[in-house]
Amino acid sequence: MTSDLLQEFDLHDYLHGQSVVIERALERYLKIDNSELHTIYRAMRYGVFSGGKRIRPILTLAAGELFGAQQTNLLPFACAIEMIHAYSLIHDDLPALDDDDLRRGKPTAHKIFGDGMALLAGDALLTEAFHLLSSPESRRSVPADLVLQMIHELSRAAGATGLVGGQGLDLEAEDKEVDLATVELIHVRKTGALILASVRIGAQVAGAKAADLKRITRYGERLGLAFQIADDILDARGEPAADERAESGNNEVKKATYPALVGAQQAEDKLKELLEFCLDEVRPFGAPAIALMAIADHIVARTIHGGLNTLRKEMGN
Amino acid sequence: MTSDLLQEFDLHDYLHGQSVVIERALERYLKIDNSELHTIYRAMRYGVFSGGKRIRPILTLAAGELFGAQQTNLLPFACAIEMIHAYSLIHDDLPALDDDDLRRGKPTAHKIFGDGMALLAGDALLTEAFHLLSSPESRRSVPADLVLQMIHELSRAAGATGLVGGQGLDLEAEDKEVDLATVELIHVRKTGALILASVRIGAQVAGAKAADLKRITRYGERLGLAFQIADDILDARGEPAADERAESGNNEVKKATYPALVGAQQAEDKLKELLEFCLDEVRPFGAPAIALMAIADHIVARTIHGGLNTLRKEMGN
Repeated sequence: MTSDLLQEFDLHDYLHGQSVVIERALERYLKIDNSELHTIYRAMRYGVFSGGKRIRPILTLAAGELFGAQQTNLLPFACAIEMIHAYSLIHDDLPALDDDDLRRGKPTAHKIFGDGMALLAGDALLTEAFHLLSSPESRRSVPADLVLQMIHELSRAAGATGLVGGQGLDLEAEDKEVDLATVELIHVRKTGALILASVRIGAQVAGAKAADLKRITRYGERLGLAFQIADDILDARGEPAADERAESGNNEVKKATYPALVGAQQAEDKLKELLEFCLDEVRPFGAPAIALMAIADHIVARTIHGGLNTLRKEMGN
Repeated sequence: MTSDLLQEFDLHDYLHGQSVVIERALERYLKIDNSELHTIYRAMRYGVFSGGKRIRPILTLAAGELFGAQQTNLLPFACAIEMIHAYSLIHDDLPALDDDDLRRGKPTAHKIFGDGMALLAGDALLTEAFHLLSSPESRRSVPADLVLQMIHELSRAAGATGLVGGQGLDLEAEDKEVDLATVELIHVRKTGALILASVRIGAQVAGAKAADLKRITRYGERLGLAFQIADDILDARGEPAADERAESGNNEVKKATYPALVGAQQAEDKLKELLEFCLDEVRPFGAPAIALMAIADHIVARTIHGGLNTLRKEMGN
């Protein structure tokens, strides 16, 4: 069943359609309405509108729509998550961290605006995410105490115990020998936490039942790890990453990666296993879960030697 | 009346007592409970526990207690504001911005932990502030929709239209000729916005009436500007700043300041005028407003040539 559904579903169209919706919303949330603050807004917008794939907010929409939420009610949450992602890339690229000149083939924010303004633009985007989350727009369809819970969850995913903590661990692991447990720990925090929050927050805006939220949580946990492993595999092969977080850029510091530790084949096997887990979790929801299935499938499939069809045959039943 | 009250009130004792309460709460909120994240927590704590005067959270407590809030209910809000202040100092000191090696006579965070870890520690503190604001502890005595309103207000004060925006404008004004209106605009954003939010949020946690909140707002607006002017005056004289935000540090970039533009005497006159406005706004609340009066008085008095007593005679009636 999964296999047929996946064949029929046009993921490319879906991703394009959803990203247009998200771009339009981000455009509205990041309007330059104050002339004397022109530069910082330009820098913030440069970080946000620079060709990102919008995977995280698309996951929020997909998880929310699966449980019946209206797209307009999901958008402030989805866009806040994308702002957090964008801020973290701007800061990541700074000389203080990865010192990258290029991202997605374009000059990084600090190359255009200077290190100081890029640093501030990142700070402003992170702050703006919480401004949006606490706005009347977020509260329109969601009770105030649930909005607070989601701010609490997202700030946990983005902070010292999540994304930023993972970057800190990654920084400490540079040019050191680390074991597999440490690499997984870094991945879970650096990439996994925000991916997981993306789907969980979508489901919560929709008012998903506890049991459904548990399924979505397990889906998100596996997908987060799959994401990073897939990107590490592509990166090791010198191919463009599926997601921008993992791009190694031009600065070749030795970073701890999954395939480097276990070898390419075992990394691929792990990926396939993670995909199966992901699909298993959302398969019971049937056709409405097709977007979540196709996204997971896509992330893994483009990484596996032999490609989509082999995998689908293995998976189909 | 004001004059007598101020003579009797022991501001030094008050500030010490309140800062002990705040330190204890910050200690609890920033516990290192996760061994593998040790380094980032150490860097965050280094930024927070490095001899700051806690003026902002003390203002939150003072404004909240004036209108009858319990201290324990004010603490998560007060400490979140202090975390935002601490993050902004860590980022300010980075080579990308002021490139300062020392703050309050101690090495800056990046001198101890490296630029990358200091950048991340600042990011984590900002995120942690919102984690705390959205925690069950904040919601204990305050309705969820009001907590959301305060997150909205504080994120506005801290973001592109407030603190970070002001830093951006300041950065752009470096080594340029700017007029008085621009300097005031930078001050209002860079220092004023968070000072204003500090008192307003205290009053709102206490459930202050609209008319009282208006008085506190006017008090906070004037105090914010007075703060920055006072620090600029002290800085121009080579004396330690009353507040850590304005410390020029060791990197002598020409920054736009009030006394540099209008002269020392006119800057002092402006300060006296602002103090009178501050006192006028809270005088009607009588003795319970003594802390807010004394703080404003203190900030101005230590800056004015001739000192406290001259000023008090002028003001007393």
